[in-house]
Amino acid sequence: MTDFPPSDPVDLDPVALTGRLIACPSVTPATGGVFDALQAMVEPLGFTVHRWIEGQDATGHEGPVENLFAVRHGPAGSRHFGFAGHLDVVPAGEGWTAHAFQPEVRGNLLYGRGAVDMKGAIACMVAALADIPADAGTISLIITGDEEGEAQHGTRALMERMAQLGEKPDLILVGEPTSVHRLGDMMKIGRRGSINAWFTVEGREGHVAYPHLADNPLPRLVALLADLDAMELDHGTDWFQPSNLEITEITVGNKATNVIPHRGMGRISIRFNDTHSGAGLCARLEEIAARHGAVARPKIYGEPFLTPPGEFSAMIAAAVEAETGLIPEPSTSGGTSDARFLKSIAPVIEFGLCNATMHKRDEAVALDDLYALTRIYRRIVLAALS
Amino acid sequence: MTDFPPSDPVDLDPVALTGRLIACPSVTPATGGVFDALQAMVEPLGFTVHRWIEGQDATGHEGPVENLFAVRHGPAGSRHFGFAGHLDVVPAGEGWTAHAFQPEVRGNLLYGRGAVDMKGAIACMVAALADIPADAGTISLIITGDEEGEAQHGTRALMERMAQLGEKPDLILVGEPTSVHRLGDMMKIGRRGSINAWFTVEGREGHVAYPHLADNPLPRLVALLADLDAMELDHGTDWFQPSNLEITEITVGNKATNVIPHRGMGRISIRFNDTHSGAGLCARLEEIAARHGAVARPKIYGEPFLTPPGEFSAMIAAAVEAETGLIPEPSTSGGTSDARFLKSIAPVIEFGLCNATMHKRDEAVALDDLYALTRIYRRIVLAALS
Ligand SMILES: [Zn+2]
Ligand SMILES: [Zn+2]
Repeated sequence: MTDFPPSDPVDLDPVALTGRLIACPSVTPATGGVFDALQAMVEPLGFTVHRWIEGQDATGHEGPVENLFAVRHGPAGSRHFGFAGHLDVVPAGEGWTAHAFQPEVRGNLLYGRGAVDMKGAIACMVAALADIPADAGTISLIITGDEEGEAQHGTRALMERMAQLGEKPDLILVGEPTSVHRLGDMMKIGRRGSINAWFTVEGREGHVAYPHLADNPLPRLVALLADLDAMELDHGTDWFQPSNLEITEITVGNKATNVIPHRGMGRISIRFNDTHSGAGLCARLEEIAARHGAVARPKIYGEPFLTPPGEFSAMIAAAVEAETGLIPEPSTSGGTSDARFLKSIAPVIEFGLCNATMHKRDEAVALDDLYALTRIYRRIVLAALS
Repeated sequence: MTDFPPSDPVDLDPVALTGRLIACPSVTPATGGVFDALQAMVEPLGFTVHRWIEGQDATGHEGPVENLFAVRHGPAGSRHFGFAGHLDVVPAGEGWTAHAFQPEVRGNLLYGRGAVDMKGAIACMVAALADIPADAGTISLIITGDEEGEAQHGTRALMERMAQLGEKPDLILVGEPTSVHRLGDMMKIGRRGSINAWFTVEGREGHVAYPHLADNPLPRLVALLADLDAMELDHGTDWFQPSNLEITEITVGNKATNVIPHRGMGRISIRFNDTHSGAGLCARLEEIAARHGAVARPKIYGEPFLTPPGEFSAMIAAAVEAETGLIPEPSTSGGTSDARFLKSIAPVIEFGLCNATMHKRDEAVALDDLYALTRIYRRIVLAALS
């Protein structure tokens, strides 16, 4: 933490809080220190903290992973507002002008991995809560250390624990960096679902001079991939762009120019809107594969979610406009997020910092944005609980 | 040469000659010892030997390579019969039950790399010539050390040297192992031509969630390969099977499931008959590639050749039938051979040993076949010169 103000357990300035979280390296799967730091921030605010480790078995999935659920109950009958997010970060990567895990303020920017995705937003949540009286209502923090990876042991495990605890928010805000050019220009009211699928076509190896003794799998692979690429999905909806399929890889691995190979493989990726279900698409993929004598192995990475514009989005828009003058565009673009899981317990919307530097070298957040986001989050909580 | 009779410079027994050639390791590109051995065999028979090295420059092509042209002139006005072949062999490979370059007789088989392809046949040529009187006509041996590789410096260089020497056979017999089940069951009166072609389709990399910012090259690659696979070639001729195109490789190399790759590559192999020219096919490939925004790099490995059944094939068939009782099928199947070059100076046909073990571990030739092939070659030479 060179070049950074010393940590102070009672300093609830969002810049200081962000720095304290960045200083804990927490590449996915995350455990330990970064959760200690968050716990130390919220317990003084009256929150009860539940922490536990998932994924210690030998299932082959990413782990161990830490999860944290913190709650402060309002008076009986209170409404319940939930903030959700992740403390894990993607690896630093190459080419940083400073250390990725030593927060550093230069000019009006705070640098460090997770500055915008999304330790900065979590710091703003904490800073926002510091000013909200305990009797305003029930508030919870739903924070995982496993979002950037397979999310095998993350938010879904948190939701199970919340169900055991009998905790169910009325609304959930995910702090992903949804802003594009300026803080406040975009929120995410939905996300497309995601499927990757692998296809294998088997044949019989042989010499190109004797094709009748071989069975070349590649014409079938090519025809299969052409059919997949031509799949009719949809033309989009009021809130979603059209679903899209991309061929992302083709592998044969045949060095010999005079040999007909015995196998070819292809891979596709589909991003789909709420006119489809993951299972329905997988069935279509398997049917097309079967027509070409291929084996399909589709995997659903996320179902789509949509919280149609309404009371919750209006509440967020009003808070954003009051602080920034911007009305955030309700978007459903981009990749998946943990909102795909949370949608099953409450209406969920994502709103957070500018995403220009997320997952990149020299990830950085404007200090002014941290203060503004803190004020926006405070307005949203107060509106949601009233 | 353990377990093998000691070499005797005047022993013109074809089994002994084959063993002496096998004992000289001569994996492509071949030079030196194996040519010394052949020279020592034919000079006592009255042949003038020309030997030289090709491919010593730094062109990146296989080399250096040795070539040998041996000739014994008959009386003025004699007909000229040429034997052609190669003394290089493919690498030993794994799994031999004995040493690949130590000839060994077990039972009625002689083992060693090159036993059938084609040191055995060259030994039979020498043994056959031993009994042919010098005044029967002009006889030559056209022997390269570069047939199994790219043949960049092999038979074509021999033909240039022969032109300089003013030597032009009336008929040429190539000693490739053309027999399949029994010595004498097949000769090759033609070979298909061969082309390999590489195709590259370029696009723009991007994230699958934002396809409008990327340009996926793989749908174009797949459509290109489907069009190539559907190319109308021909339905075969009286002597050739239909030309054939095989997709042999597709490469992308994209590990990331959520990334649209920037490039895809494909490779095909065409074996084509004499209804096409290599240049004509290359032009068609380039035209189809251009339709898909792809770059094609076709390479012609050989043009087809055909010596239609007639006087020469009848001469060979008669010799084979006299010694084996079989009438050899005039075939044009299989891969390329150096006959694709030699066809430009004389009618050329291939006839030789059984090919079951060629290029395999434990390559072996039946001793009886070496004696029979020697007698067949002698009959062919006498008929061709008469
Ligand atoms: Zn994130
Ligand atoms: Zn050969």
